Formats: sequence, C-alpha cells, structure tokens
Amino acid sequence: MTNLRIPGPIPVPEDILETMSTQMINHRGPKFKDILYRATDGLKKVFMTDNDVFILASSGTGAMEAAVTNTLSPGERVLCASIGSFGDRFGSIAEIFGAQVTKLNFEQGTAVDIDTLRRALDSDPDITSVLVTHNETNTGVTNDLEAIAKVVKTEFNKLLLVDGISSVCSIPLKTDEWGLDVVATASQKGWMLPPGLAFISMSERAWHASQSSKMPKLYFDLTKYKEYYDIGQPPWTPNLSAIFALDFALGKLLEEGIEEVWRRHSSIARMTREGIVNIGLSVFPDEQIASNTVTAVRSPAGVDADNLRSVVLKNHDVVLAGAYGELKGKMFRIGHLGYVTPEEINEMLVAIEEALQEVC
Amino acid sequence: MTNLRIPGPIPVPEDILETMSTQMINHRGPKFKDILYRATDGLKKVFMTDNDVFILASSGTGAMEAAVTNTLSPGERVLCASIGSFGDRFGSIAEIFGAQVTKLNFEQGTAVDIDTLRRALDSDPDITSVLVTHNETNTGVTNDLEAIAKVVKTEFNKLLLVDGISSVCSIPLKTDEWGLDVVATASQKGWMLPPGLAFISMSERAWHASQSSKMPKLYFDLTKYKEYYDIGQPPWTPNLSAIFALDFALGKLLEEGIEEVWRRHSSIARMTREGIVNIGLSVFPDEQIASNTVTAVRSPAGVDADNLRSVVLKNHDVVLAGAYGELKGKMFRIGHLGYVTPEEINEMLVAIEEALQEVC
Repeated sequence: MTNLRIPGPIPVPEDILETMSTQMINHRGPKFKDILYRATDGLKKVFMTDNDVFILASSGTGAMEAAVTNTLSPGERVLCASIGSFGDRFGSIAEIFGAQVTKLNFEQGTAVDIDTLRRALDSDPDITSVLVTHNETNTGVTNDLEAIAKVVKTEFNKLLLVDGISSVCSIPLKTDEWGLDVVATASQKGWMLPPGLAFISMSERAWHASQSSKMPKLYFDLTKYKEYYDIGQPPWTPNLSAIFALDFALGKLLEEGIEEVWRRHSSIARMTREGIVNIGLSVFPDEQIASNTVTAVRSPAGVDADNLRSVVLKNHDVVLAGAYGELKGKMFRIGHLGYVTPEEINEMLVAIEEALQEVC
Repeated sequence: MTNLRIPGPIPVPEDILETMSTQMINHRGPKFKDILYRATDGLKKVFMTDNDVFILASSGTGAMEAAVTNTLSPGERVLCASIGSFGDRFGSIAEIFGAQVTKLNFEQGTAVDIDTLRRALDSDPDITSVLVTHNETNTGVTNDLEAIAKVVKTEFNKLLLVDGISSVCSIPLKTDEWGLDVVATASQKGWMLPPGLAFISMSERAWHASQSSKMPKLYFDLTKYKEYYDIGQPPWTPNLSAIFALDFALGKLLEEGIEEVWRRHSSIARMTREGIVNIGLSVFPDEQIASNTVTAVRSPAGVDADNLRSVVLKNHDVVLAGAYGELKGKMFRIGHLGYVTPEEINEMLVAIEEALQEVC
C-alpha cells in the first residue's frame, strides 16, 4: 500500500474513512444541528478556546482569506512576519484585499526572531495587526507562537491573526491562554480527516475589528456564519460528508486527549529526524525549531530532490513532498501528521536510504 | 429510511457514496492529474462546452462569488435579473464587491420577462454584464435561459454570468450553443454527489473580462486555477473525496447520456406536479415555467407550510424544504434532482396527503 508521507492530505484511518460514506441529511434540520453543535464544541476544546469557532467548506487558504477579510480594511497597516511560502501567501492575501502590508521576512529555515519582531512593531505605531504562520509547512519550522503572542498582544496590544493550518491539533497551540485573535486551520492535517473543511476561531477583539472591517466578502463572511450558527445551521450548504467524519474523529481525538495527541506527534517527529540523520542526511532547520508535523530534509550535494522523490515513489511506493519556490529541487519534505505508525516511518526511511544508492 | 426530498443535498446512490471512502492520494502527483483531467473533460461534456471548467472546494455560493469577482470591477454597471432569493444573492455579491447593480426584479413565482429584460438593457447602454439564475430554487421556476442569452448576447453583446446551481446536469443548458460566458453549479444537485464541490466554466470573453477585473480574490482566483490546471494540479488542496466520487458519478452520467438524464428529471418532475395536483394542492408557478428539479407547492389556506413539513417529517420520515424570505410558511418545496425513483415520489405524496389530514 502507498505510504503517503506529504504534509496533507494524510492517510485517513479506516474507521474515519468509512464515515465519509454516510448518507446525506437535511443541513437545515435537527440532526445536523446536533452534529454542528457537538463538532463545534469539540473544535473549541482542541483550539483551547471559548471563542467562536466556525466550520468552512474550503481548504486552509480559504480560512486564511477569511481571517484577513473579516478583520481588516483596505489601507490598513499590517505587519506580516513570514518565514516561508505560506507566510508570504498570508501577506499576499492582505495585499490583494487592499491592506498596506509591511513584510518582515526571515531567512528560509529560521523562525521569527522575537527581538526583530519587537523592533518592527516599535518602529511603526500605525500597524494595527500582525499576520503570522505558526508552523511553516514549506521549511518545516515551528515558530514560538507563545513568545510572538506575548510581544504582539501583551507588549503592543495588536490584533494577531494566526495561520495554524499545519499546527492546530498536532502542535501545542493555546488560543485563549496566548490571546490569539484569529486562528485558521484545515481538516487534512492532524485531524486525521480528508481535505475539504477549514476551521477558524474569532476572539471578542476580532469580532470588534470585524464591525469596522471594509474588505468585501460573502462566502467567507463570518458574521453570516455566526448568525446562522445561533439557529444551528450553516449559511451555505456545508461539506456534510467531511462534517460526519469530523464529528467521529473529534470523538477519537478527545478520548485520546489533546496533550497526548501532541506527544504522539512529537514522538513520531523525533523518530523521523533521528532516522534522517542516521541515514546521513540533514534536517533543514535547527533541532529546536524543527516542526513536529513536517520534516524538511536537505538533498545531498549533486542529488536533485525531485529526482530522488520520483525514485522513492517509483521503486518504493512512498510519496514524499517537494518544496516550493527557491527551495524547489534542493529539499524534500516528509509529512508526519495525523495517525502515523513507527512502521510507516521506518519503511519510508529504508525507501529513502535505498533510493539514495539508486540515484547516486 | 428517511426520504430526503429537499433541493440538495440529495440522497446519494450507494455506489457513489462508497467512493467517498477512497483513501487519500497526493494531490500534486500523477494519479490526481489523471483524475483531474478525466473529471474536467466529463464536466465539459455535461456543461456542453469547450470552455475551461474548474472544480472548486466550496458550495455553489462560492462559485457565484467566483463568477462575479473574476470578471467584474468595482464601479462597473451590472444588471441583475432576479426572480427570487438566489437571484437576489447573485446581485448582492456583485454589490458587496463594489459593482453598481441595477436590480430587475420579477414577481416571485414568475420567470424573467424577455421584453422587460430587453427594455432594461436598451435603456442603459453602460451596463456591461448581466447576472441571471437559470433555475430559481426558492420558487421552483426555470428561466428560459436560451431566450435570455439571445437578448443578452446576440442583441446586446454583454457578458452573461449564469447561476446554474440547480440546473446544470438536470435541465437542458447548452453553454457554447447559447453563448454563456460563466456558468456556476454545485455537486449536491443533479450530479448525484454530496455537497463540497462547485464547478464553474469560463468563456474566452470571460477570460478577457478577467484581465481587467479589479475585484479582489485569492481563494476563488480562476487565473490561478488555470495556471495550475496546465500542470495537472489544483492551486489549493482540493476536496479529494468528493472528486473521487465526481469521477465515478460522471462515468455513470455520461454512460446514461446527458439528454437521457434531462428526460429522467423531466419525467420525475411531471409525476411530482401531477401528484401534487391530485392530492388537491397547487404548484406555485405556472406549468410552463415549473422547474424540473424543485417543485414549490402552495400551502392550503390556514395551514402553515412549516408546520405541515414538521408533521410530514415526524410521522412519515419524509424531509421537505421550507421557503426563504417572504414565502416562508406559505410554501414548501420538494427536491427531485439526482437519482429519484417513482416510488420515492409516491411515498412522499402519500405522506403529504396523510399529514394534511392530520394538521387540518
């Protein structure tokens, strides 16, 4: 069987996959209302928040757009702290919708430097909001979101919008304790679900910002989601199949316990990084900022990473991810989110080791 | 078993439902590329077009937003010919994103009057584009889209954006023959699929308009979809499960033949309307404009439609849809799109007849 080791979509456990075949129901009826409320309560537990959380029918990029368009206005001064392609995407969305974005870019493979962030905010008091990626999927780096939030919220009292797409549910993220205003994530990650759903939380402060937000939106208008949530409905036809699966998966995740889920991801990630080093390769970022959901690996000198990936696929049926942008060809990436067994990681490491001999 | 008779989500045939449990694959790999190209070719056959057609991860409302934001600009003069709530929604989206919308509203339960439309276009040469709903799901009325297109395209040469959400695949719609520039539809309708996907076509003329379009978009930016389609990928993570199901369902639909699928919908719709009349109720619109995907039924004097629906649900396990806006409580709606058997319609008619005696 194919060993799918990309940072989403992830291999979905069989019992969750089966719930995707549940027959349709009325999305404006009492059964759906029960599921919507139960799933939303479950999501709040994983987000660690009492804030509103909504279920969108979109990919994570849709939720990033929702984060921006529901809280900001054209012309507004925004700081985008980016450590890679997904951070850049967050800033681009804000620019496309008319915000004036100051780009604070850090070297690929590094994390947001807290002092640099502090200086950027200090030097420009007109900045109202900060965009940040918790876990940069393209470089396998996890930012210290707690420290970032301390600066942005406690020291400067700005609005903080977080791309938590490849972190929430896999890597510790405490929405209320850290004061995160908006957190966006998507189903095909640690949630053990197929793609097709995104989840987004809105703090009181974010709702306040939404009242004066002038960016246009309809499909991602969270005010509509809130209005309909109060009567137990979605504003638009929801992705029912994935919501049935979400309801079931949340039961499993909460039974396991969210801290245990984090530990499971941490343990599999450490095993992956150690294995990579043991076969003579090196992990792109430093160990203390290396992600627990995706490992970015440098291709050895003279080996094109995409060529290596195609040999791993063809000869071993293991799917690795490439890198975007300037890192393309120089790196490959291993996804280890959702339910991953040590056997799957071992099989992949053997495949990479053998493929290296085949391409060298 | 519940008889789900709302205009989407529809009961999905078991064999299609099973494909929703297909395991995930790499959405940037060769297997997905094959599925994407095959499914897109199938969609083009159903849309009857050589235009580009894209698969979005959203509800139909998302595709309506894509239609507007990819072709129009703030300040642009747009005519919205509306015959109900979904027509109004199309106009609202254009307004929210800054277009200057002239609303040409027709009485609920009637269709677009061709002469009135012609006069509206004649009286305002600054109008660049027309928004129209093919099949208004809230009133069960089908517009004569061919005649509308003749006026909008042949007589006035305007851009024509069509909400075909509850029509494409169920009711004759010929994108190229009628010259429709943009057609938007969604999976939970005649396609026999769960919700979670939307489909949208773009003519050469629509692409030309997109080049000067200044409305902001990222998630629904069709230029990105086109750029990625050329390399066999989606720009964002797609709704894989529903695309597996789409690929399978298209095989069934094309084997049946699209004209036969239209006939099947027409035949079940006629049976529904005749049955409604036979139990002493009346269909809201006139027979010649009555929709073949959804039948709107007047509630008898003194009977609240929503109360009747709840009795039908409670005592007979048949789910009917309510109406939106000013029609709420005065009408109920029956969905008969996708694969519907005469037995399901008969069971529903018996349920309504018995419930009427129970509430009267």
